[in-house]
Amino acid sequence: MSTKNSGSLNFRGTRDWFGDEMRWRKSIVSTIENVFESFGFEPLETPILETMKTLTGKYGEEGEMKLFRLTGNGTDIRRGGLRYDHTVPLARAVALNWNRLIMPYRRYAIGPVFRNESTQAGRFRQFYQCDFDTIGSDSLLVDAEIPTMNYRVLTALGFPVGSFQILVNDRRLLNALARYIEADDNQMLEIFRAWDKLEKVDRESVRKELLDKGLSFRLVSAFDRLTDVLQNATELSATDSLAKISSAMNTPEVTSAVRVVDDLFSYISASGVPPWAVRFYPLLARGLDYYTGPIFETSAGELGSITGGGRFDQLIGQLGGPDLPASGSSFGLERLMVVLEELELKPEFVKPADVFVTVFDQQNPQLIRSSFELASSLRQAGFRVEVYTGSNARLGKQLDICRRKNIPVALIVGEEEISSGNVAVKNMVSSRSGGNQSIIPKKELETFVAGLLG
Amino acid sequence: MSTKNSGSLNFRGTRDWFGDEMRWRKSIVSTIENVFESFGFEPLETPILETMKTLTGKYGEEGEMKLFRLTGNGTDIRRGGLRYDHTVPLARAVALNWNRLIMPYRRYAIGPVFRNESTQAGRFRQFYQCDFDTIGSDSLLVDAEIPTMNYRVLTALGFPVGSFQILVNDRRLLNALARYIEADDNQMLEIFRAWDKLEKVDRESVRKELLDKGLSFRLVSAFDRLTDVLQNATELSATDSLAKISSAMNTPEVTSAVRVVDDLFSYISASGVPPWAVRFYPLLARGLDYYTGPIFETSAGELGSITGGGRFDQLIGQLGGPDLPASGSSFGLERLMVVLEELELKPEFVKPADVFVTVFDQQNPQLIRSSFELASSLRQAGFRVEVYTGSNARLGKQLDICRRKNIPVALIVGEEEISSGNVAVKNMVSSRSGGNQSIIPKKELETFVAGLLG
Repeated sequence: MSTKNSGSLNFRGTRDWFGDEMRWRKSIVSTIENVFESFGFEPLETPILETMKTLTGKYGEEGEMKLFRLTGNGTDIRRGGLRYDHTVPLARAVALNWNRLIMPYRRYAIGPVFRNESTQAGRFRQFYQCDFDTIGSDSLLVDAEIPTMNYRVLTALGFPVGSFQILVNDRRLLNALARYIEADDNQMLEIFRAWDKLEKVDRESVRKELLDKGLSFRLVSAFDRLTDVLQNATELSATDSLAKISSAMNTPEVTSAVRVVDDLFSYISASGVPPWAVRFYPLLARGLDYYTGPIFETSAGELGSITGGGRFDQLIGQLGGPDLPASGSSFGLERLMVVLEELELKPEFVKPADVFVTVFDQQNPQLIRSSFELASSLRQAGFRVEVYTGSNARLGKQLDICRRKNIPVALIVGEEEISSGNVAVKNMVSSRSGGNQSIIPKKELETFVAGLLG
Repeated sequence: MSTKNSGSLNFRGTRDWFGDEMRWRKSIVSTIENVFESFGFEPLETPILETMKTLTGKYGEEGEMKLFRLTGNGTDIRRGGLRYDHTVPLARAVALNWNRLIMPYRRYAIGPVFRNESTQAGRFRQFYQCDFDTIGSDSLLVDAEIPTMNYRVLTALGFPVGSFQILVNDRRLLNALARYIEADDNQMLEIFRAWDKLEKVDRESVRKELLDKGLSFRLVSAFDRLTDVLQNATELSATDSLAKISSAMNTPEVTSAVRVVDDLFSYISASGVPPWAVRFYPLLARGLDYYTGPIFETSAGELGSITGGGRFDQLIGQLGGPDLPASGSSFGLERLMVVLEELELKPEFVKPADVFVTVFDQQNPQLIRSSFELASSLRQAGFRVEVYTGSNARLGKQLDICRRKNIPVALIVGEEEISSGNVAVKNMVSSRSGGNQSIIPKKELETFVAGLLG
């Protein structure tokens, strides 16, 4: 079967996850879940199917284009689509259930989201997001937990010192600064988007873009002077940087926003996040329009961004629920795996089972029963045991399969072993060159195998 | 907000899984995964999106009607749909990757499948299936593992002795019996379907249905006599029942099929499945057309069927891969949960965190920092800790939240505690009537809390 024909069988922009990759992914998910739960967050799973009424009008024009819609028998089907993220489904679920949830409601969600992306850019149309959010509190304590939890997840995954940095800013500070240069709400959004680009695009092109978008020459010059102050501030500690901004743009609104960010940093540090891992970055703006307070993004240097999040106090109200404040963060799982691989943190050797029980003669029911009995008693003792269930393979081929599967111990029960009450044990790690077989009495088997597994 | 308006926000036939229910479901999934892995099965996750080419022509006319199709921007989107089960995606993934898989390939898959069902019947359109299958071996050892694994999963979930029974039959035996009464292939399928109904519908209506379907009077009478033999056989042990069938319908084909089922039972029993848990049921037929060998179904008595499966040797070939034999089984997760609940095996008390740290004064940065520091050090010690992150709640209300969340321990750090190096610990399990507070030096806190948690 040619690769080309094969490829067309997969839906474009999706992939299969086989054993090793899947086991690795599961272990990452489990690490993330443990951190989320160590902060008392509860799991919530919302369905993959949502109504288009819930999905539309939340993701902007570009997002809207990427929604998958359903079709099939029945008119209500055509009113359905696939979830695009975990945030809008959370808002929908809270809007439906807020009166029986204990506030603040702290939930996490890990699962696939769906976007009709151009697959040419190497993007997937189904990928995993890992979110945590707190609903129903406007307290800064909620926001302080976000970088703390990001930090705990990344260190639990093995990210070494200096391999990432959590950038922190606040939309209210950005608003205050934009108002300081007398930009209106629309101009503000253009300026925020321009700041987000400054790491990739030079100042001159950003200036040009803003002028093209209709911002006045006066405003763009003010933007420019402000950018100078902010860019210089990014090199300083949070406290020094905030002091500098506050003294340069001394309005009550700026001063008040600065104080909030200062408190935020004090709580983050009280939670044990070391200074290298978190940084006030006054140019951080984050694309999405719905942020209303602190915003966060974790940068893994040249490897790009691995988390994003912030406060979004108006989304639940939009979904028909009460006007509940909310704040949270999201990890992109596939992105995280790429970075872990680049950092050489992908585990090398994964064994799908501890023990491989051969079947000496597949035509001999007595020998088959002995292999099954042996496997069963080892499983009761807690080992993961595969019995060879293929047909017509000689012992050599069976041991070869065991070796290729990285299973470290192989057992053989032939007629001789049955009559003597023994089992032949092969150490498959040391026996690549052959040999290394021990004959062990059945009652000592568990201890011996445990010893081989280390 | 009225319930009626709320309801319309959920896509029909889907549901949200909140904390307690979700934690319970996760613990069940984890138990199932552990059993699957103890048999050396590997995880495989296929995408939720598949091409319609893969999905169509596999599920019969009725299944085809229940497929969800995609629509959106781009013509290839309209060639996509949502997976209907895990079996066809497995066959597709193997057809694409068989040359790099080690055979026999043993995989499990746990995740949602999608069916455009009538929601009036209380059916869900998104529900979880837990499948395991072995590809690439026609050995009876593969089939023998199926009821063994079903048994291990159910006992691991706490199903008591006698609460379920795994019914076993073989399509080849059914074929041999149908040929004994000289039914052709189409008549055979009608007869199989009739047998599947015999537990719910009386003999007379089944006879009528078969005559209506065009089966001759001679054939229906033969079916009737055969059914008598099989129904009497269901009350016997597998060996006696098989012997009875073999002597009543003494053709070489029947004899050979009987021998296979007899071996199968011998291997199942060698794997430690007790006689009460597994039963030869010669009337079991299973609706799906694609079964070619042993078939299985677990009955939980009046609570209905909780697993189904069998050998399907021709499906991979249909998906364009080589003609690989396959056999496996599926658990319906929601169905399993209903039965567990009926059996009163649903855990009552789940705590979302071990410790709840109050914030004595939400306006006092020093007190906030102390609460965060305390929470952080307890998490380092392995506890799951929620800090109260709501706003403006007095201590009494915070403790009330802790109580409603079933968190067993609450901590208080006020100014007095900070200056004395102590923490106030409330045992929330015993303190429903108030009281039961201890003042503990910080360095003894972990041991004290661990003691309270038992």
